[in-house]
Amino acid sequence: MLLRIDHVGIACRSLEEAIERYSSVFGLATSGESSYVQLLEPLGDDTPVGRFLARRGEGIHHVGYAVADVVSALETIGGRGVRLIDRRPRHGSMGASIAFLHPADLGGVLTELVQPRGVRET
Amino acid sequence: MLLRIDHVGIACRSLEEAIERYSSVFGLATSGESSYVQLLEPLGDDTPVGRFLARRGEGIHHVGYAVADVVSALETIGGRGVRLIDRRPRHGSMGASIAFLHPADLGGVLTELVQPRGVRET
Repeated sequence: MLLRIDHVGIACRSLEEAIERYSSVFGLATSGESSYVQLLEPLGDDTPVGRFLARRGEGIHHVGYAVADVVSALETIGGRGVRLIDRRPRHGSMGASIAFLHPADLGGVLTELVQPRGVRET
Repeated sequence: MLLRIDHVGIACRSLEEAIERYSSVFGLATSGESSYVQLLEPLGDDTPVGRFLARRGEGIHHVGYAVADVVSALETIGGRGVRLIDRRPRHGSMGASIAFLHPADLGGVLTELVQPRGVRET
């Protein structure tokens, strides 16, 4: 069901500083076919990333996996007893359809399913 | 410098339970060319993963990036002021040469450099 790691989401207090850090330390990776790092600065304190930062500080926030069909994947995974944060897909970045699964049922890992733009539903 | 995400390391209390969880929920992903999930059960309480579990509970532990030359990457990154947990590469799984970078200088992200087996040093 999982095609590959789509991205790793990293919570940061300042996107500007995080981009500067990644570009100065590693050189900025070009975004291509492969998995990528997604830097997440919260839009406010009372947002999922804002609450994560308050509780845990900066760090890895979630893992996203590419799937061919996010609606079907949600149905299958929900049927296996995993709580779904998003019961239906919503719009993610770059035209993707995304949905989050609850970390409490996945060993503490906030997990995102990503049907990339242009991947047809079957 | 970073070629791609090599893997995401996930700390778990029981490898057996974690494998069961991933295989029953998602179906076990086959390990191929692409990025993979690495499940980490500690060998004891007083190990890096053991201390992580005591402090944070189960969850995402680190991100590993593939590099072509881990010795050269360590030298470059260390020269940019990032503290190195491993000043010299050591043996990782599947014949890789690996080294960890300190999360305090990388926005709370424990970061591993991985020179996969068979990737020649330049």
